[in-house]
Amino acid sequence: MGLVVQKYGGSSVADAEGIKRVAKRIVEAKKNGNQVVVVVSAMGDTTDELIDLAGQVSPMPAGREFDMLLTAGERISMALLAMAIKNLGHEAQSFTGSQAGVITDSVHNKARIIDVTPGRIRTALDEGNIAIVAGFQGVSQDKKDITTLGRGGSDTTAVALAAALDAEVCEIYTDVDGVFTADPRVVKKARKIDWISFEDMLELASSGSKVLLHRCVEYARRYNIPIHVRSSFSGLQGTWVSSESTEQGDQKVEQAIISGVAHDTSEAKITVVGVPDKPGEAAAIFRTIANAEINLDMVVQNVSAAATGLTDISFTLPKTEGRKAIDALERNRPGIGFDSLRYDDQIGKISLVGAGMKTNPGVTATFFEALSDAGVNIELISTSEIRISVVTRADDVPEAVRVVHTAFGLDSDSAEAVVYGGTGR
Amino acid sequence: MGLVVQKYGGSSVADAEGIKRVAKRIVEAKKNGNQVVVVVSAMGDTTDELIDLAGQVSPMPAGREFDMLLTAGERISMALLAMAIKNLGHEAQSFTGSQAGVITDSVHNKARIIDVTPGRIRTALDEGNIAIVAGFQGVSQDKKDITTLGRGGSDTTAVALAAALDAEVCEIYTDVDGVFTADPRVVKKARKIDWISFEDMLELASSGSKVLLHRCVEYARRYNIPIHVRSSFSGLQGTWVSSESTEQGDQKVEQAIISGVAHDTSEAKITVVGVPDKPGEAAAIFRTIANAEINLDMVVQNVSAAATGLTDISFTLPKTEGRKAIDALERNRPGIGFDSLRYDDQIGKISLVGAGMKTNPGVTATFFEALSDAGVNIELISTSEIRISVVTRADDVPEAVRVVHTAFGLDSDSAEAVVYGGTGR
Repeated sequence: MGLVVQKYGGSSVADAEGIKRVAKRIVEAKKNGNQVVVVVSAMGDTTDELIDLAGQVSPMPAGREFDMLLTAGERISMALLAMAIKNLGHEAQSFTGSQAGVITDSVHNKARIIDVTPGRIRTALDEGNIAIVAGFQGVSQDKKDITTLGRGGSDTTAVALAAALDAEVCEIYTDVDGVFTADPRVVKKARKIDWISFEDMLELASSGSKVLLHRCVEYARRYNIPIHVRSSFSGLQGTWVSSESTEQGDQKVEQAIISGVAHDTSEAKITVVGVPDKPGEAAAIFRTIANAEINLDMVVQNVSAAATGLTDISFTLPKTEGRKAIDALERNRPGIGFDSLRYDDQIGKISLVGAGMKTNPGVTATFFEALSDAGVNIELISTSEIRISVVTRADDVPEAVRVVHTAFGLDSDSAEAVVYGGTGR
Repeated sequence: MGLVVQKYGGSSVADAEGIKRVAKRIVEAKKNGNQVVVVVSAMGDTTDELIDLAGQVSPMPAGREFDMLLTAGERISMALLAMAIKNLGHEAQSFTGSQAGVITDSVHNKARIIDVTPGRIRTALDEGNIAIVAGFQGVSQDKKDITTLGRGGSDTTAVALAAALDAEVCEIYTDVDGVFTADPRVVKKARKIDWISFEDMLELASSGSKVLLHRCVEYARRYNIPIHVRSSFSGLQGTWVSSESTEQGDQKVEQAIISGVAHDTSEAKITVVGVPDKPGEAAAIFRTIANAEINLDMVVQNVSAAATGLTDISFTLPKTEGRKAIDALERNRPGIGFDSLRYDDQIGKISLVGAGMKTNPGVTATFFEALSDAGVNIELISTSEIRISVVTRADDVPEAVRVVHTAFGLDSDSAEAVVYGGTGR
């Protein structure tokens, strides 16, 4: 008998009908002889409604109270789900993050899990229960305050519990059929990926793919927990994410040369113009950004113009952090020394991901040829061992993704690439 | 510096505006130099909406999960209230029943408080915070499961915390101005009572007055915690409930002969007809009812008809328990031995309450004369040292309450008896 962790997102439990449908699926897994732990998000728009309420009473809600408020959402969905399961004749108990032993640091609204002590979950399972656990929430180690894990936190809860309980698999149920070779809203011929390595999935996640978040995949890789991303609406096999050596069922899965094409239009580009080309200048800029707690993505320094001894440094960052970064740089302009700042939020990033590119030297050439043939102008380039990313005009992104997808033979032959829902969550 | 516990009901925090209004009132109490602990119910109709959701997924929701679900309601209101207070520049922290140390037995949906260990509340107060506590909820001592205290549970939470923290007063804020000499919806000239003893309040509560529940007053009496029932909408002094020896402010308050007139139309009457008039028969009937976990109110046995050796036994009980009581009696008819059952749910009860009646022998006579003059027929009578109750036709209740109220000089001279809201909660 195996232990399975299943996670259902808010769109899967948006109303009473959704909760009853999910309850049936959970009971099936139990009937198949598994111990089942279910991690559930808040119903549909509950979290947004609570955020709206908070905005009505305070323009800047305190972190501790905001977490207390938001965690009411999963409390509702998990209790209802447990009731629905019991109504099908199976035993179920719901547990808050705190009761499930999800111990975090004290950073409200984006806490990190530092330990999982699922003693009560283990007991509930041993007594024959299906355990329902609130996603997205935990309890702080020092103050015993309720915390939340931030965006995508329920996926992280599921993987962390799977690791602590030594589960066979962590199934992430969502409203799409799995991870695709590109966003199906942009590329009609995108194909569902049957299997992808942790490494390629991490690159896709950090390049704009929204099905799984980077943090969740990183956690799964560290503890080697296979993830199965699949639809809670269809009964189809989805995408397996696991280490390279994993065999799925009876067959050894071949690693594809290219896993997929990701894109991201949520970033902006800042160019620091007229920076003295001497040691320590770039460091001063990036220290300023780091002190403002902003994460950079791509960084490029132009060749210095010998005549002036000045250079330009460009970097990309989330649009939402643009204002803060510019303020921080302007405040430190005397210390850093630069002429001016340029801000551009009409950019997009296209990334090609695949471990196979390490041993296939033609990949880079094919990539740039495809973009060139389509007349797409490239502004920045960044590469890792298994990824090439370029920045273009935002308007060019859809066409660029399509031509690259085609150039690497990723297009589906048929209309098999079904996508449900389509919010891309 | 004193410690004050304030409790706000759902109608006081029904929306963001209500929460902000309540926050201001709380901050006033803090500014007056008090340590302030606030117990809050779920917002407006939240609890009803959650109950409705539960009904959609399961016809018979399990107690444990039902409690988990319902407690989401106070989690939302308490977090929002803490945010609103912080927005006014004062420190506040919210606490669940469990965090506040409200320890209960394991009877889900109507748990009883068995201990209160408010260590975290005390610490929060000592650090200068206003402590916001979720009403209606606790954690079970044995299983550490979330429990709820049943109807009126938030009032009980407030009084229990006031006792554990040795508070000066427990202020119960509601949508009426206090406890009245009769229900102002029935008696337009009802007067707000300035002070009433625990004993009289207990009798009023068990006779149909809905402002305070019996359980809450009983708890306050046991620990001698003065209760101040008042409106969260007006700023007026409400009704003080305390032991007879308490002085309010500088003046010793005189005990009134009669505190008020309560009425109750939520009960039904069952008459067991043709019971053999011999020892043990009544006991068999009441054992049957007790085994079905039904609480009786009034009991009357008719004089036996000597010719037949048979008698009738009548009792009243909540209408909601009628079906269950009849089923239990019918099942045990062979053992008990009776001819038939009569069920009547068109009855009403009028009660006159006042410690003064002990030493004023004319009270009973005045009471019955008033009813007789109004042509009200009396079906059952029951008395205690400080209460007379009669059962009449339900239709006669409003007139009966009015004539008794007038007969004991309780009518207000003016239109001072203002009532806000008027739901009687």
